[in-house]
Amino acid sequence: MRILILGGDGYLGWPTSMHFARRGHEVHAVDDYLRRRAHADAGTDSLTPIGETLPARAEAFREVTGLEIGVTEGDLTDWDVVERLFREFEPEAIVHYGEMPSAPYSMIDREHAVFTQTNNVVNTLNVLWAMAEFAPEAHLVKLGTMGEYGTPNISIEEGFIEIAHEGRTDVLPFPKLPGSIYHLSKVHDSHNIHFACRVWGLRATDLNQGVVYGIHTEETQLDERLLTRFDYDEVFGTALNRFCLQAVIGHPLTAYGKGGQTRGYLNIVDTIRCVELAVTNPAEAGEYRVFNQFTEQFSIMELAEHVRRAGAEVGLEVRVEHVDNPRVELEEHYYNAKHTKLLDLGLRPHLLSETLIESMFETIQRYVDRVIPDHIDPATRWRGVREPSPR
Amino acid sequence: MRILILGGDGYLGWPTSMHFARRGHEVHAVDDYLRRRAHADAGTDSLTPIGETLPARAEAFREVTGLEIGVTEGDLTDWDVVERLFREFEPEAIVHYGEMPSAPYSMIDREHAVFTQTNNVVNTLNVLWAMAEFAPEAHLVKLGTMGEYGTPNISIEEGFIEIAHEGRTDVLPFPKLPGSIYHLSKVHDSHNIHFACRVWGLRATDLNQGVVYGIHTEETQLDERLLTRFDYDEVFGTALNRFCLQAVIGHPLTAYGKGGQTRGYLNIVDTIRCVELAVTNPAEAGEYRVFNQFTEQFSIMELAEHVRRAGAEVGLEVRVEHVDNPRVELEEHYYNAKHTKLLDLGLRPHLLSETLIESMFETIQRYVDRVIPDHIDPATRWRGVREPSPR
Repeated sequence: MRILILGGDGYLGWPTSMHFARRGHEVHAVDDYLRRRAHADAGTDSLTPIGETLPARAEAFREVTGLEIGVTEGDLTDWDVVERLFREFEPEAIVHYGEMPSAPYSMIDREHAVFTQTNNVVNTLNVLWAMAEFAPEAHLVKLGTMGEYGTPNISIEEGFIEIAHEGRTDVLPFPKLPGSIYHLSKVHDSHNIHFACRVWGLRATDLNQGVVYGIHTEETQLDERLLTRFDYDEVFGTALNRFCLQAVIGHPLTAYGKGGQTRGYLNIVDTIRCVELAVTNPAEAGEYRVFNQFTEQFSIMELAEHVRRAGAEVGLEVRVEHVDNPRVELEEHYYNAKHTKLLDLGLRPHLLSETLIESMFETIQRYVDRVIPDHIDPATRWRGVREPSPR
Repeated sequence: MRILILGGDGYLGWPTSMHFARRGHEVHAVDDYLRRRAHADAGTDSLTPIGETLPARAEAFREVTGLEIGVTEGDLTDWDVVERLFREFEPEAIVHYGEMPSAPYSMIDREHAVFTQTNNVVNTLNVLWAMAEFAPEAHLVKLGTMGEYGTPNISIEEGFIEIAHEGRTDVLPFPKLPGSIYHLSKVHDSHNIHFACRVWGLRATDLNQGVVYGIHTEETQLDERLLTRFDYDEVFGTALNRFCLQAVIGHPLTAYGKGGQTRGYLNIVDTIRCVELAVTNPAEAGEYRVFNQFTEQFSIMELAEHVRRAGAEVGLEVRVEHVDNPRVELEEHYYNAKHTKLLDLGLRPHLLSETLIESMFETIQRYVDRVIPDHIDPATRWRGVREPSPR
């Protein structure tokens, strides 16, 4: 299958590109290095050393495996780039990771907020237009986030919910309570994609993904030059990855507030597998499907306890610090999100284990000299004018 | 009260500015002539002759009433403009009509789609940021649209709905099924504004307005130089206004498809009154209120029948033509939208009557020489790749 990977230089985009290429697909990866530039601006970096450029990574992949990954360095908000990609590559599936992915980044100030929403909304609109114009039978597999739902007081369904109201019923989009300007941009995308399926007859799968953890996939372990990035700073790092790094360098685990915040989590190898399941089982023409893509729910304190226990096994003394919560969010709440659709398609989850955490410790230890300790503590605040009400 | 009117040159913005000024408020109107430019590009125009510029209209208003309306000609996507407005005028209420308001415009092509969403989303983000920064106690009265809801198979509540699900209940944002790129932009705004109230503690009222009809308010009748614009072309004209003009010039009424499409409607004088009720009864700090702003529901064929009957009274022979529906929408559907919150605040509706329609005929007749017949029939299509499913 011809598979276009948007955001192919990223934490997930690069291993996804390699995975599909090794399974015999024709892969073309696109990136404009948004995250690399944001890191350079902030003075932060990936823990793992990654190839200088996407072409260099693809070249290393070719040397190691003999397989090709096509590459475009370009910005998806630029229609000329998108049009050329669709005309020349003629994708059958589009895996769309190509967005600014950080909630704290979107909350830095007005410029970052406006940039995040325009970047994400415009590049997805461009992709939808290109599909309608040049690839109406192609299948869009779009990375959304579980953060679109927020923390409602009812169980979270996968994208749609049947509502009974005054004697009538309908199945309608699940209401959204996104918690940052970034999460809002994903909600905007979801509405735009749903519209394109309803009105233009496109086919799309929106993967509302939980928090991803892990360093390695099958392909990243083939050669050091094939490593994917690993972020641990306050802007791009996510909970478990950050905790593992903090444990290794002796930094207290930074639990925001009470630490009762509960979210869905999944291993990076399951991300790749979920995307593959979506691509190989495409949506129908005109169908907008939503899968909740995670394998387990944890509260922040449960995650911290996992890391503490794994640390004890290998002689690391792990301390948890409740830091002032920079975000506006409920710290104790009901959370029960459904996630059966990907299991129905055949997902066999790699659940979180102390063994996995210990192997992450090992990899982090290998690159510990690269750690930049400056931007580990949270600095970006969801500031308000008065006591906020997250719901 | 110091009231900032964004989009103060528009069909509703201009009469709203005059209304508040005549009731003793300090009014500042802002516009960058987006709609005038779009008309100039398309070769269309307002039926009614309106002042050359916003300053000219404010000057005429001063000559007629002795009252001042402050004016800024500027683009709300430009932060410098927004920052200066908030710093210098220090608004207590912001009435926000300042967006690209047309569904067909947003569907013309990719450029118009991207422009509509970026323009609307960015200027609202800028306003929210300016409020948080410079006017955290001010009240945002934002014009949304009933079109955000689409046509669900359950009754439409005012912004939020209580959902009982698997033994738990929550009150959550009403699910949205917007029918165009423009309507989507308003849904994006609604989510962004709700977030700003939840997280920054701002106060906002989102007026989900129905289709407005009518030419005159108390102030537009004071002097011909104070007229508001009246659009009847396929891009900016709306159902009843278009039908009235079509009746006068002997053009068949253009009913799209079967004409069973049912929507909420209201008289322009009720729009002004609703906005006034919202402004004088502000939301609480941190509160995001949604009012459904319309007074009656009609199907397209019911509207056409009203116009036919009024035409017969004054000797106009009115014919209805079912034209191929350029939009993707249900043409027969359940529709029952709640609209009690503004009535509870004291709205006394001016319901649609044949007398009102006849007086619209008279005004249209007065300017009939200005009619440009070229762009009355629909041309912009919600094209798709296959039989679409509007739900």
